[in-house]
Amino acid sequence: MVEHIESLQHLAEQFGRLQGIGRKTAMRMAFSVLRLAPEEAEEFANAILTAKQSIHECPICGNLTDKEICSVCDDDTRDKRLICVVEDVKAVMSIEKVREFKGVYHVLGGVISPINGITPDKIRFAELIARVGEEDVREVIVATDPTPDGEVTAMYISKYLKPLGVKVTRLAYGIPVGSDLEYADEVTLGRALEGRQDV
Amino acid sequence: MVEHIESLQHLAEQFGRLQGIGRKTAMRMAFSVLRLAPEEAEEFANAILTAKQSIHECPICGNLTDKEICSVCDDDTRDKRLICVVEDVKAVMSIEKVREFKGVYHVLGGVISPINGITPDKIRFAELIARVGEEDVREVIVATDPTPDGEVTAMYISKYLKPLGVKVTRLAYGIPVGSDLEYADEVTLGRALEGRQDV
Repeated sequence: MVEHIESLQHLAEQFGRLQGIGRKTAMRMAFSVLRLAPEEAEEFANAILTAKQSIHECPICGNLTDKEICSVCDDDTRDKRLICVVEDVKAVMSIEKVREFKGVYHVLGGVISPINGITPDKIRFAELIARVGEEDVREVIVATDPTPDGEVTAMYISKYLKPLGVKVTRLAYGIPVGSDLEYADEVTLGRALEGRQDV
Repeated sequence: MVEHIESLQHLAEQFGRLQGIGRKTAMRMAFSVLRLAPEEAEEFANAILTAKQSIHECPICGNLTDKEICSVCDDDTRDKRLICVVEDVKAVMSIEKVREFKGVYHVLGGVISPINGITPDKIRFAELIARVGEEDVREVIVATDPTPDGEVTAMYISKYLKPLGVKVTRLAYGIPVGSDLEYADEVTLGRALEGRQDV
């Protein structure tokens, strides 16, 4: 029986460790590996080791990098006095794709969530406070997700930073571009009305 | 910018080579690897190499194995005179799960599909004919998928094997157990009526 080939089963288990990969998908991927050319399989194995060894968190902002500090912090054209606070590295990627933000980041590595036992000391919150204190930061844009936990985190950050004389802002809420009003939920629509702007 | 970390990008490309994995999923999986413990990442890389090196096709039936011949062909309690012909190794797994089939398999490695340029010489068809000729096979169950190509393949096999005095059968068509008649398509329902059995 195919399922009893130990090395195949073991490979499927490795795929199963990745986030969001279930048992069936893991087995499908293990099969896919068998269809790779031998040199492709070797390249795959090496890529895992290389990525794992070379990539680490930027000591300044928590973004991922394979250099000493990340490319954003290392970029002299970026405004170091404008910090965008995000939950994770994926948010950095999303914002970078817009190509409009010219400041730097601070990756929290999570959001405050008392119900899940995530207190401010479990995320890179103290590092943010220290950074704002040391550098001459003029504005902190809190770009945590628009979830209850994200909101709580934003408020918590704001509470700590405002006394330091730093401007704290939050991403605008509103209706998504290209969407249909009919499908907007009441809360979003309410926020969009609240935040209405002159044309 | 995170996307420009070469080793991460490279790792995502490796995941992207696997069947059914798109660009976004591949990047998500690459991130997942970064969250593994170092020893887990190493185990993952080794599992790829080990599986790739140790697993090959069974020389008799085409099933996958890490032994000389596969566990089904190697099992003396299985009826070697009853061969179930399947498209791929996944079909072997599906049928083995039922734990009712006591014969052996023959994995074609595909189905005849003239429109896709897959002629009988591109699949393990000659091997099947040779096998039936050499061994004292009494019945061949064709368990290709119930698709047009699967049907064509089944008919082709039947045409070749019947003159050799071998009984050739096909899996029964009908309504799936636990399903609702209301949702059965006409063709399936038609076949279910045709194949009706005494109770």
